[in-house]
Amino acid sequence: MKPIQVGLLGAGTVGGGVFTVLQRNHEEIERRAGRGIEIAVVADLDQERAAQIVQNRAKIVTDAYQVINDPTVEVVIELIGGYGIAKTLVLAAIAAGKHVVTANKALIAVHGNEIFAAAREKGVIVAFEAAVAGGIPIIKALREGLTANRIEWIAGIINGTTNFILSEMRDKGLDFEVVLKEAQRLGYAEADPTFDIEGIDAAHKASIMSAIAFGVPVQFDKAHVEGITNLAAIDIKYAEELGYRIKLLGITKRTPDGIELRVHPTLIPKDRLIANVEGAMNAVQVFGDAVGTTLYYGKGAGSEPTASAVIADLVDVVRYQSVPADKRVPYLAFQEDKVINTVVMPIGEITTSYYLRLKVADETGVLANITKILADQDISIDALLQKEALAGQNQTDLIILTHKTQEKRMLSAIEHMTKLPTVLGGVIKIRLEELS
Amino acid sequence: MKPIQVGLLGAGTVGGGVFTVLQRNHEEIERRAGRGIEIAVVADLDQERAAQIVQNRAKIVTDAYQVINDPTVEVVIELIGGYGIAKTLVLAAIAAGKHVVTANKALIAVHGNEIFAAAREKGVIVAFEAAVAGGIPIIKALREGLTANRIEWIAGIINGTTNFILSEMRDKGLDFEVVLKEAQRLGYAEADPTFDIEGIDAAHKASIMSAIAFGVPVQFDKAHVEGITNLAAIDIKYAEELGYRIKLLGITKRTPDGIELRVHPTLIPKDRLIANVEGAMNAVQVFGDAVGTTLYYGKGAGSEPTASAVIADLVDVVRYQSVPADKRVPYLAFQEDKVINTVVMPIGEITTSYYLRLKVADETGVLANITKILADQDISIDALLQKEALAGQNQTDLIILTHKTQEKRMLSAIEHMTKLPTVLGGVIKIRLEELS
Repeated sequence: MKPIQVGLLGAGTVGGGVFTVLQRNHEEIERRAGRGIEIAVVADLDQERAAQIVQNRAKIVTDAYQVINDPTVEVVIELIGGYGIAKTLVLAAIAAGKHVVTANKALIAVHGNEIFAAAREKGVIVAFEAAVAGGIPIIKALREGLTANRIEWIAGIINGTTNFILSEMRDKGLDFEVVLKEAQRLGYAEADPTFDIEGIDAAHKASIMSAIAFGVPVQFDKAHVEGITNLAAIDIKYAEELGYRIKLLGITKRTPDGIELRVHPTLIPKDRLIANVEGAMNAVQVFGDAVGTTLYYGKGAGSEPTASAVIADLVDVVRYQSVPADKRVPYLAFQEDKVINTVVMPIGEITTSYYLRLKVADETGVLANITKILADQDISIDALLQKEALAGQNQTDLIILTHKTQEKRMLSAIEHMTKLPTVLGGVIKIRLEELS
Repeated sequence: MKPIQVGLLGAGTVGGGVFTVLQRNHEEIERRAGRGIEIAVVADLDQERAAQIVQNRAKIVTDAYQVINDPTVEVVIELIGGYGIAKTLVLAAIAAGKHVVTANKALIAVHGNEIFAAAREKGVIVAFEAAVAGGIPIIKALREGLTANRIEWIAGIINGTTNFILSEMRDKGLDFEVVLKEAQRLGYAEADPTFDIEGIDAAHKASIMSAIAFGVPVQFDKAHVEGITNLAAIDIKYAEELGYRIKLLGITKRTPDGIELRVHPTLIPKDRLIANVEGAMNAVQVFGDAVGTTLYYGKGAGSEPTASAVIADLVDVVRYQSVPADKRVPYLAFQEDKVINTVVMPIGEITTSYYLRLKVADETGVLANITKILADQDISIDALLQKEALAGQNQTDLIILTHKTQEKRMLSAIEHMTKLPTVLGGVIKIRLEELS
């Protein structure tokens, strides 16, 4: 049987990985898929870079429509990235009746509902394993491996750049800005790292997992997103002293009041497996009512790890392209008519535990005032750490871990605390999750 | 559409879990599968136990053939266990044209090749996600998630009982026999724990993963199997001092000389994620050439975790029963005509690192003799720990970590060591894997 003919849009790092892996493992892949996979034509505006990557292994064109409208092409891989031209081209490929494989989390997170609707109309596959957690087959696990479960929550380290930065900040006691520069020098962070360090990339991925886990539409626009740019090394240190590690987590939970969907730095107990995921590695912890906790760990980015996911999707296309569309695994795991439009709760409505750091005057009665404010909001204290004032200073750090409470209660308590004359400056608040 | 009609053979703990989860999550499951799943008839010799578990939710019979030959039954779940009657019934179900879902690792490990051949003949699905690592969707990850990769090796904590025992031995410094009794009392070990503690259960699972990873037949009969019954608390302690943890691993590797397939206690560096998998939890680390390391963690046993895997297989049957057999994912991941009969190497041929513990006389020249023996076999030393002799004793423990060498060289070195008059008693040898 003739190899399946693939068109590639965007010949960058991941595209290079796809070529390399397909070439190196073509025999192994065909032993599994029962059919070869061949990239026949590649579109990229940068002909020189494309030529370097493609190395005469495929035809190179500048016009993406020459790929999309090529009658021999059965699948289009989109590796352009971003929401702009990528969206237009993916919709054009679908309209042309091509199956699509994409690694583009931004695209799926922002325009997924529209794209899947178009694909459903044309009966084509849109596969996106590479869009979440790179080489880890987490989309397959959620869509197919855990189908027996009512999934209760997901918490993931799904951005390698920020996990690398946080690991370095902890190991070396350095501040964010210093480590970011180092990460950029080493290639772990991009020249413009905004999407990573502000949590947007993680929110894209969390939004996709949320939809697949709960059978709701992709709702990136409703996600609460905080990055790590304001995180101080001292909070990482205090968290360690209290037995916690700080990670940037993408979290989505099902609650009786709606869905939580949020990305922010989070304290987690040190002895959780996910707390020990270091450097640029990714991990996703999933809690299902039948299976309990499962965790999936691996490289979340990089040329070949991402190519691993892209090619796994191509193998699935080989297998399932001849299957009637209504028998395939649904794009977002749930049958289209069974997707429920559950509301994503505003951040004020969510319930979690908190780490608070206050700079307080070293005077009697300070603690009494603060604990009274918490008690007034019905917030109970789980642990408290008061540092000794340094010699010659009459101020000190006070760290409080609370039990679970609603965010708006906590915000109200903080507002009251900052008004106390003995509380000097703002109150640092970091959310805490037990993940058990 | 009418729910798919399922027959169940064996109404025990897992069968109960399947009923409970199907009932509790029927809506969620149908939202995904697009069709309901209904257990219509259950066969069990113990009518009383069956009645308790089934609770009028299905017809109960004593004769398994009444399930197999029921024309309304489309899928048969086999939860009897063991190689005996389970094999006869699974083959009978296949012969009757039924799809089969089984949690029976012994059956697949020992008779898998025969069963898959029969199933291929009849064009039916035989699904066995629950046979390896319980609720963790590791079969799906290996068969479908990592299809781009040349898988190089797998190392798994795939027996919860022994991992629980090893965790307790380390935490409490207790010996094997003591902890085993405690584990039996708590229900973590069975009354007859032979299959678990002797490594046989882990070897069943490793044999299945080996076949799926490398595209070879299931070769349980060629696995090298050592359990944890001879493991001393002191070795766990010394390993910790050297920065290692001891786990019972199921290991399978691809080497230029053949396939390694072995189960034995193994030292692994403490900072590996898998070294931190505690209690009865399971984890499987997979190394693929494109994706690098991925790891899958969760509950490897228990009623609902196992049911989670069984029901995921049922959902797959709902989806793929109408797909032509040659388009489905092959039973053992590779197309039948592409399975290669690669030899499993005898244990003497494998290459790994070693932990050695010797009781030696506290005399000059002892170390020189021992290191010379290792040097003669071309074995280089990675670390050495000599304990101070206790007051009044003229013997001491010597611990050696070696670099990689072939097992037969190590055995030869040990034979020479035991002949030294300064080496008192036998030499304890535990294999060591870096897993990087």
